[in-house]
Amino acid sequence: MQSLQEKASEWSGVDSADAFAIDNTNLFQKLGLQTFINLSTNFYNSVYDDEEEWFRSIFVNSKKEEAIQNQYEFFVQRMGGPPLYSQRKGHPALIGRHRPFPVTHQAAERWLHHMQKAVDSTSDIDEDSKIKMMNFFRHTAFFLVAGDELKNQNGRVPYKHGASK
Amino acid sequence: MQSLQEKASEWSGVDSADAFAIDNTNLFQKLGLQTFINLSTNFYNSVYDDEEEWFRSIFVNSKKEEAIQNQYEFFVQRMGGPPLYSQRKGHPALIGRHRPFPVTHQAAERWLHHMQKAVDSTSDIDEDSKIKMMNFFRHTAFFLVAGDELKNQNGRVPYKHGASK
Repeated sequence: MQSLQEKASEWSGVDSADAFAIDNTNLFQKLGLQTFINLSTNFYNSVYDDEEEWFRSIFVNSKKEEAIQNQYEFFVQRMGGPPLYSQRKGHPALIGRHRPFPVTHQAAERWLHHMQKAVDSTSDIDEDSKIKMMNFFRHTAFFLVAGDELKNQNGRVPYKHGASK
Repeated sequence: MQSLQEKASEWSGVDSADAFAIDNTNLFQKLGLQTFINLSTNFYNSVYDDEEEWFRSIFVNSKKEEAIQNQYEFFVQRMGGPPLYSQRKGHPALIGRHRPFPVTHQAAERWLHHMQKAVDSTSDIDEDSKIKMMNFFRHTAFFLVAGDELKNQNGRVPYKHGASK
């Protein structure tokens, strides 16, 4: 069986070395907190204003300000900054926390469309950092698609032990 | 509704500031790679040899060597060392990756029983680091119990959008 990581690489077209090249530089030190806040603000402004209702509706029960804070705190923590996210919310637990949402291939591509726009419209992100971040985002988006599929594997027999054997 | 983090704190008795006090020190630099390898080896030797069959059986489909490597690579990454886990396996995704297992309150306590033994029997872990690590482990174990309960909330209607509203 393919691992989550293998599926993420296959579907995203980004191998894991490129996805985690964010760990070769300290992007938080390079870009600073305000750049991450701006990036997530630009991203969610675009998402909440999406002309595609099917995608916009995924976020209808989330407050934009909270979504922005959750995202930039996670990015800061993951990209070399202080563990803001865990101090406030605990483990990122990316798959678990995305469980309520339909993370399909199509949704991953739409998320990435908004993120590419946000990265391009946020000043002070140099070209090398953009590439590293977009590779990380692309791989992670499809990692979550792979995680979403776990719902279908085990979801039907939640009380039965050993159902996944 | 209580958040994962709130449930983890209530059930573990460890507040999040104490759980994430591991971030106030670089435990990897303090303890070194070999100590983490020894800790996870001691832990899984104890788990795979558990007299309580119900707990031992949770691990019956996992190879001990892999379980050891997964664990110490995650600990190293989370406690200030190189991102060994993500380079090999991607995001920790703690809740998602524990999905196949019955992470009950009882299982969390048994896991912690083995971890306390392992921490106590691993040389070169000073008292302050022991306390920090056990607070992190205890909080995380119950965070995963909270994550496990998500299976019951959404698991019955895996194909229906908006079921969690």
